[in-house]
Amino acid sequence: MGFAGRLAVLIGAQVPVTGYAGGDDGGIWLWMALIVGVLALVAAFMLIRAVNKADTGTPEMRVISDAIREGAEAFLRRQYKTIGIIALLLAVALFVGYSVSARTAPIALKVVISFLVGAICSGIAGYTGMYCSIRANIRTASAARSSLNGALQMALRGGAVTGLVVVALSLIGVGTLFLFFGGLQHPQTVPYQLVGFGFGASLVALFAQLGGGIYTKAADVGADLVGKVEAGIPEDDPRNPAVIADLVGDNVGDCAGRGADIFESTAAENVGAMILGAALYPVFGVKGILFPLVMLAVNLIASLVGVFVVRTTETEDPMHAMNRGFYVTSGLALIGFAAAVYGMLNGPLVHPGWLFGCGIVGLVTSFLFVWITEYYTESRYEPVRSIAHASLTGPATNIISGLAVGMETPAMPVIAISAALLLSYYFGVQGLHDVVGISDYAKGIYGTALATIGMLSCAAYILAMDTFGPITDNAGGIIEMSNQADAIRARTDKLDSAGNTTKALTKGYAVGSASLAAFLLFSAYLEEVRAIVAHKVNLAGGYMPPGWNFTNVNLAQVPVFVGAMLGAMLVFLFSSMAIKAVGRSAQKVVQDVRDQFRENPGIMAGTSKPDYGRCVHIVTGAALKEMVLPGALVVCLPVAVGLIFRNFSSTYQTASTTYAAGTILPVPAIAGVPVNLAGAESVAGLLMVGTIAGVLMAMLMNNGGGAWDNAKKYVESGQHGGKKSEAHKASVVGDTVGDPFKDTAGPSLHVLIKLLATITLVLAPLFV
Amino acid sequence: MGFAGRLAVLIGAQVPVTGYAGGDDGGIWLWMALIVGVLALVAAFMLIRAVNKADTGTPEMRVISDAIREGAEAFLRRQYKTIGIIALLLAVALFVGYSVSARTAPIALKVVISFLVGAICSGIAGYTGMYCSIRANIRTASAARSSLNGALQMALRGGAVTGLVVVALSLIGVGTLFLFFGGLQHPQTVPYQLVGFGFGASLVALFAQLGGGIYTKAADVGADLVGKVEAGIPEDDPRNPAVIADLVGDNVGDCAGRGADIFESTAAENVGAMILGAALYPVFGVKGILFPLVMLAVNLIASLVGVFVVRTTETEDPMHAMNRGFYVTSGLALIGFAAAVYGMLNGPLVHPGWLFGCGIVGLVTSFLFVWITEYYTESRYEPVRSIAHASLTGPATNIISGLAVGMETPAMPVIAISAALLLSYYFGVQGLHDVVGISDYAKGIYGTALATIGMLSCAAYILAMDTFGPITDNAGGIIEMSNQADAIRARTDKLDSAGNTTKALTKGYAVGSASLAAFLLFSAYLEEVRAIVAHKVNLAGGYMPPGWNFTNVNLAQVPVFVGAMLGAMLVFLFSSMAIKAVGRSAQKVVQDVRDQFRENPGIMAGTSKPDYGRCVHIVTGAALKEMVLPGALVVCLPVAVGLIFRNFSSTYQTASTTYAAGTILPVPAIAGVPVNLAGAESVAGLLMVGTIAGVLMAMLMNNGGGAWDNAKKYVESGQHGGKKSEAHKASVVGDTVGDPFKDTAGPSLHVLIKLLATITLVLAPLFV
Repeated sequence: MGFAGRLAVLIGAQVPVTGYAGGDDGGIWLWMALIVGVLALVAAFMLIRAVNKADTGTPEMRVISDAIREGAEAFLRRQYKTIGIIALLLAVALFVGYSVSARTAPIALKVVISFLVGAICSGIAGYTGMYCSIRANIRTASAARSSLNGALQMALRGGAVTGLVVVALSLIGVGTLFLFFGGLQHPQTVPYQLVGFGFGASLVALFAQLGGGIYTKAADVGADLVGKVEAGIPEDDPRNPAVIADLVGDNVGDCAGRGADIFESTAAENVGAMILGAALYPVFGVKGILFPLVMLAVNLIASLVGVFVVRTTETEDPMHAMNRGFYVTSGLALIGFAAAVYGMLNGPLVHPGWLFGCGIVGLVTSFLFVWITEYYTESRYEPVRSIAHASLTGPATNIISGLAVGMETPAMPVIAISAALLLSYYFGVQGLHDVVGISDYAKGIYGTALATIGMLSCAAYILAMDTFGPITDNAGGIIEMSNQADAIRARTDKLDSAGNTTKALTKGYAVGSASLAAFLLFSAYLEEVRAIVAHKVNLAGGYMPPGWNFTNVNLAQVPVFVGAMLGAMLVFLFSSMAIKAVGRSAQKVVQDVRDQFRENPGIMAGTSKPDYGRCVHIVTGAALKEMVLPGALVVCLPVAVGLIFRNFSSTYQTASTTYAAGTILPVPAIAGVPVNLAGAESVAGLLMVGTIAGVLMAMLMNNGGGAWDNAKKYVESGQHGGKKSEAHKASVVGDTVGDPFKDTAGPSLHVLIKLLATITLVLAPLFV
Repeated sequence: MGFAGRLAVLIGAQVPVTGYAGGDDGGIWLWMALIVGVLALVAAFMLIRAVNKADTGTPEMRVISDAIREGAEAFLRRQYKTIGIIALLLAVALFVGYSVSARTAPIALKVVISFLVGAICSGIAGYTGMYCSIRANIRTASAARSSLNGALQMALRGGAVTGLVVVALSLIGVGTLFLFFGGLQHPQTVPYQLVGFGFGASLVALFAQLGGGIYTKAADVGADLVGKVEAGIPEDDPRNPAVIADLVGDNVGDCAGRGADIFESTAAENVGAMILGAALYPVFGVKGILFPLVMLAVNLIASLVGVFVVRTTETEDPMHAMNRGFYVTSGLALIGFAAAVYGMLNGPLVHPGWLFGCGIVGLVTSFLFVWITEYYTESRYEPVRSIAHASLTGPATNIISGLAVGMETPAMPVIAISAALLLSYYFGVQGLHDVVGISDYAKGIYGTALATIGMLSCAAYILAMDTFGPITDNAGGIIEMSNQADAIRARTDKLDSAGNTTKALTKGYAVGSASLAAFLLFSAYLEEVRAIVAHKVNLAGGYMPPGWNFTNVNLAQVPVFVGAMLGAMLVFLFSSMAIKAVGRSAQKVVQDVRDQFRENPGIMAGTSKPDYGRCVHIVTGAALKEMVLPGALVVCLPVAVGLIFRNFSSTYQTASTTYAAGTILPVPAIAGVPVNLAGAESVAGLLMVGTIAGVLMAMLMNNGGGAWDNAKKYVESGQHGGKKSEAHKASVVGDTVGDPFKDTAGPSLHVLIKLLATITLVLAPLFV
């Protein structure tokens, strides 16, 4: 059998494939993308220098800012140590797991290396983003003393460092590994060896987001409970020993956490799209595999331009200015997408217009998600107002109404995602309609991959807007604690309010991209299982039947259905654990603050300073301890399901396994080699239904939490009796309930979804 | 082709089946079951007469009881009118839908008749149960004046009427239709014609549970908000104009609603198991089809004995007495199960021991569900205590802690259900191991059906315990409002507390049986689709390939995945709508009570009676209006998905549709007849993932709500400061939030799950 024939067999085609225009210049595209990535890092470095050079305000401000910085760095150091140990243990387990079978042993080292590189890059991305934001906060506060525009630009450019570093590291990490593993020579096998990168990135992201999320809300809830409720002092009051811990939390939760979240989104999407690109190698050559990397480069350029376009006046709503930057970024990304499609995904039998359409679908979906999130979380609209109105009859009705809004929120996004999936699939099939020998399924799925790439094509700008949030939040805290003039506080309040909006929007965007990327990752998983089976059959000297694809996740099979139930259950249990962890850690904060007030009465009198560091130290320890168990659950459950259920197929046999084992259907070639897919299929059920449940719960929590928060702000703005009214008290209850929802459990669920996908990708060989 | 050959083709077997012992005496079993059913109705009638003869206490008590009865009957009359109109419209739509295609037209009338019979039986079951419970409440109150045992027996026997009528009607309804449609002559086709019965039952149940659930909680929350919070009068105070509406709500929500719920559980499980029994016709003959009906008869006898065994002393916990009855019922049911298995499901190649094992699995599962529910909702255990403890720091932490408990609750039940599914499947395969020519899948699924039958084999007793709850609740209200002595109130309080426990346990049981039955109903749906395809191919003169089974619900296919997402979304949206409906209706109650207090100051002074009827009238109207939209959503979404997606397969093609359409695999016989399964498969995805999400959300809501309720009671018992403390106030907030969870949305979700299953069963022919 010649090369083309073997190829056709490998990709599951029936007849030799036609359509690829030949002449593979993929190397040029890869190098171009890598150079853009390096330049983006240089740009980020220059931004850091520019930020560092800016004025740091008064000595009082510096004292506070230094305390925040020290706390955040201490947390990250200890957190990374814990995560590092977990990652090393997993690396060893991965190596052992892969080495057991002669079939997987040859790539064991490569998978472990890419796992470690992914984990390290994820860590660096999180750290750098926070490094800059804890320095930009005081400079933003200082700039706010002279102009709104100066403060806005400082905060956004500080945020841009995170965006650029995250996306650039994702590009450089995957690109370099691809080169290093000889991807240009073996483009069809190397993408499978990169799955470790996504797993490493998600693992670090899960712990970063979970630990940071527990930290930030434990400190926030603890500080509020003991400060506002018990001691009767306002938020951000310097007499509260937990106030610095609260400000540290904004950085470690929102900045470092979300940075790691988006890093693994791009990483997972990258690797998944490259695997699907490998299935279309006969059509696009290596360029189809490298397309996602090139789009990350486009992303970097478009976002950098977008950030520098943003400027505002003293009277404008800062949100408008940032939206202008977003529109510029989107426009440039769209142009870049078109250029990349016509330059890379082209050929005599390809209709690139349809493929470009996939990118438009992705971009439109991201706009829809932003709008839907705005509708549910902004006080201009009905949902938030209904919660505010329900506060009139007390906390119970406020909570009921908030939960009802939260449960309603998934409806429109699910419809948007459904439409995006169906459309991009259709566009993918149409775009490759004339290509013979590739299944419609592979074509359609590549379409959904392109839509995901389109949706993520503004990621760096979105991340800059997101990191803007904690920076301005911190800046406001510094201004408040250092007793600056009211006019300055008004400026930071304006920015802070815009920051709350951007944080909510980014969460909508993150969960939207996670749900679109999920389908791409499922398909990558199925594709990988197929490749494993093919490899196994070939090793045993069998003949892989033409047209055999593992595209079957049969919910009607008992083990798969059980896997699916367990996946959904995992989401609920994980959320419960995350929320309880916040409660327990907050109790420790409350205890410490009470102790400090009792031990040192001078604190409340304002005559002596509280020991901020002690509180920071306590939250750090509590958050790190609490993140381990839920994290371990997410890692262990899919592995357990895969390993247990892979022994199940002889009894629990249905169409798909029957097919694979060849008992009924004429697939003697596989029949000769025993192939058991019950484990792989059950894990796929867990993954898919876990993802659906995770996306819905994340939306419920993010949007419900955001709506409660803004309902409180709406009441505070003077509605329904304003501050200090009974309605306000009720709305504060809702806000407090929403806090662990929207800042701990919700964002952690985004990461959980992708971790499920990447862990199954990495461990697929063990389940077969 | 001979009869055996055609049979083998019909059931999808490869070779003629061996194992059936011949000599079909199914008719005897059917008649025996029907006679037991009729005798059970007679017993129920005698119980009603006995209840009616009992003493009705003082004139004051009668005034209150009459008001409750009038309100409940007025609501049910108006509710049944609304449901009747909806049912008639659907009957017409069903008839038209079936008549359009020549293929389905011949059975159109039969399906519509069974739909209407199911709906009417469901209505009668709900009505009779309520008829007796609104008469038993005052007699229980009266009996409580002399002894606890008398009151307990009165309440339980009043409840037993509901249990007997519900189960007997289910048995008689299905059994008579089976006879009437010629089931004894055509046992393999008639079960499919009964699917309408399940659909009719679920439709009425959905609206009964939803309308009743909205009514009961709107009245409860409204009465509490305006009575306890605004006017400062205690619960059940006769000055509150909404107090009668609140007591009416217990009957229409808990009694009539849960009666309809369990009615459709047994109906759906019956029909589903009969369809699966039809697939095993060659093994068991008609006896395999009639087995579920015979087990209903066993259920009736065992439960009747169980009810009459219950007696207690003045000092015993009434829960212990009722548990004794439950153990007696379970023991008898188990003996009956064994007898039925050895008598009916036997043959030379069958191992009935394994099949009996399936029944044990089902019964053990029901015990596990009861225990798990107790663990999460009783104040003896950690979860409720953690919520009570969290109340110390205010309503926010109470709510967070309650939600965390709620989200944790699905974990253990999901593991129990998973184990039950895997075990009963395995037992089913082992029990029929020596039977050749039937797929393992059909054997295993029949095993899960047997487990479901085992789980439901105490349904009548469980329902008696459940209806016990609202009867004692009402009795307590009557005692309170008619100013009886404290010692009497103490007796009814004891019964009321046991009633709260039984209500929580029944909900656990209902959701457990719903999730186990769900898998059986999925399989029945797949089996029906297979039969439709076979019928279609045969009509077109094609030859059905041996071994072809539709057992494929491929989540990796985009339309199926989209269907799955929509199914999960439906659960969230429906819950949101149900909760909002309670809020809106409660607002109307609050408004009316405020108006009455203003218009007639004599009410608060105690000099004149409030207009209870006006409040009842207002809640009735509001609940009926609010139930329509969520109900319509549940009916319309699966239909829309099925009808839209059935046109999708040409592009969105994967393994299963490819297989069916014969493009790749050698199934020319079907290929000759175009068969498009994209619609049927997408609906299956919606059904399965909707079920998973529904089961988890229902557990969250039922157990979370129950835990909040008992945390409040725990605080009231003197913990954490007792009544009137800040912790108590916080725990009242949690209880109020939990109310619409556990009494409206949660129970409605049980019904939603089964309605999804039955609607897809009925409409399957339209999706192919």
